Amino acid sequence: MRKVLAISIPPTVRDLGEFALIDRINAGRAQGPAVRLGPGDDAAVLTAARGNYVVSTDMLIEDRHFRLDWSNPDEIGRKAIAQNAADIYAMGAEPVGYVIGLGLPGDTPVDFVSRLADGFWAEAERAGGSVAGGDIVHSAQLVISVTAFGDPLGDRPVTRSGARVGGTVAIAGRPGWSAAGFALLSQAHQGVMRRHADSTAAVVVAAAAAHRAPRPAYDLVRAAMGTATPPEALTDISDGLLADLGHLAAASGVAVAVDSAALRDPDLQLCAAELEADARQWILTGGEDHVFAGVWAPGEAPPPGWTLIGRIEAGRGVAVDGALYRGAGGWEAFSGSDSAK
Amino acid sequence: MRKVLAISIPPTVRDLGEFALIDRINAGRAQGPAVRLGPGDDAAVLTAARGNYVVSTDMLIEDRHFRLDWSNPDEIGRKAIAQNAADIYAMGAEPVGYVIGLGLPGDTPVDFVSRLADGFWAEAERAGGSVAGGDIVHSAQLVISVTAFGDPLGDRPVTRSGARVGGTVAIAGRPGWSAAGFALLSQAHQGVMRRHADSTAAVVVAAAAAHRAPRPAYDLVRAAMGTATPPEALTDISDGLLADLGHLAAASGVAVAVDSAALRDPDLQLCAAELEADARQWILTGGEDHVFAGVWAPGEAPPPGWTLIGRIEAGRGVAVDGALYRGAGGWEAFSGSDSAK
Repeated sequence: MRKVLAISIPPTVRDLGEFALIDRINAGRAQGPAVRLGPGDDAAVLTAARGNYVVSTDMLIEDRHFRLDWSNPDEIGRKAIAQNAADIYAMGAEPVGYVIGLGLPGDTPVDFVSRLADGFWAEAERAGGSVAGGDIVHSAQLVISVTAFGDPLGDRPVTRSGARVGGTVAIAGRPGWSAAGFALLSQAHQGVMRRHADSTAAVVVAAAAAHRAPRPAYDLVRAAMGTATPPEALTDISDGLLADLGHLAAASGVAVAVDSAALRDPDLQLCAAELEADARQWILTGGEDHVFAGVWAPGEAPPPGWTLIGRIEAGRGVAVDGALYRGAGGWEAFSGSDSAK
Repeated sequence: MRKVLAISIPPTVRDLGEFALIDRINAGRAQGPAVRLGPGDDAAVLTAARGNYVVSTDMLIEDRHFRLDWSNPDEIGRKAIAQNAADIYAMGAEPVGYVIGLGLPGDTPVDFVSRLADGFWAEAERAGGSVAGGDIVHSAQLVISVTAFGDPLGDRPVTRSGARVGGTVAIAGRPGWSAAGFALLSQAHQGVMRRHADSTAAVVVAAAAAHRAPRPAYDLVRAAMGTATPPEALTDISDGLLADLGHLAAASGVAVAVDSAALRDPDLQLCAAELEADARQWILTGGEDHVFAGVWAPGEAPPPGWTLIGRIEAGRGVAVDGALYRGAGGWEAFSGSDSAK
């Protein structure tokens, strides 16, 4: 009798085909209340409860914005939604829907795409809104292009340009953790496997998780918008804290004075000590945590959960402890390395 | 005296950097009336004149949806907007804005991106709406992800599911020209250079142009929506005439009976004769012309410019001259060749 060796090959998107794949990842998903018409027609239809809507788009490219050997598909999916949802909240708005363009190599396992979609929906559950439509195409690299739509939480969207001299600057979330996670994962990838002290182990795990899938503090923006004195300017930190405060300062025609003591983070200092790195650098220039930065009117304070980090002054630019920030600490698409960041 | 040879190397996107590139391609552009806040903040803000809005997204990948040796950047830009704008019109709506995710190899010339953006804006001028925002990232292949937003032209969007038995089926535009152009360009690419008769030369040029950048008949949808009896179902032909009529039939729970005599196209027959190809196949199964197909209520006729091609009957599927269509004439993302189509 001959023995037959059965090798089970998981089905790929090429095996399944575009339409069946779309059916698979949309099965059992419930649309949010603002989505009048979801996937399946030429376009989706959404309701604009306040007569206008906020739109943001971000593209994530394999090996540039995520690495398949660092992140699982669920984390990649959550990150893709999070960075778009954060842009919507950064306008003082809440997401009501998303459309997603997906470029997939033909040999991508169907299971990978299902788990990616699970990540999209899991983060949409946290942020608000549902995936109302999309497009799936064949590409050489994995490409994820998310467009998010939102309703303003207040009477009007909150831009970067509303900061006034005397205003209070505060942040929601802890900056620098994604940068710390990137440094940790890079070292591990280069074979530098350290034995972390028990006291640091939890921090290391949290930093790596923060890099793989940020968890923006959506609720703190929602709470701030629900008060009698919402922020007058708002932005999300994606290029780096100082870089994005610089964008806010320029848009408002003011200067931002940052007090670095308010940003000290003992956990990140532990982490940095082990890596012989600089926690302050991570905090001031690391992006991708999608921390929110808001500016309150002179004399007004942000609600609980926000951390005061500085004030608005006359002038231009961003100063840290009185010293003007000049570095290109932020991250541009065509500078730096090609590794995920 | 030594001679100096000066070689001028055009600046690339890597030379210029992301932010300067964004400034360059946005310079001098005027936003449309529905765009309350354009590029430069965390997100754009648009007005929904009718309280709801239509959203469509499409991703175009180099060598899959366009070829850099077949199309110039202006044509690629126009095609990217056209196929999204067509989806908005196919809902009985008109575009008011677009956001565009752009993945660019680092060595892409800045001039290429400027001309691509010119193409976006040129087709947006034809279709309505303006480019309200976007994202530019580094990628291995050129990737263009367009999301379009629109206002319904009538009281409500027109879906694929409104067709009723006895209804009249009509199309706006001439199907098959993009497929003919693809066939022509493929032969030329394979070195088959024919000497076209004078009578065919103009048709050949027009077919190649139709493939590189379709020109959907937006005005005919606008005219139809402005009448007292607008279409009850509407779709755009992107997968192929019979495939997309099949989607409409399935969504409406009816059958579509097509009369092929109404689709005869003498110009395409000339073209097909030269290529030893089948014009009927191009017309019935070629997609990407973004022809519109509409269904009018029993007894109602479409306005001038629309071509009657059939009627809605009880049953399922699509029949041509009485024979049920079974072929997978449409195009799925993961089937067929990888060449542009």
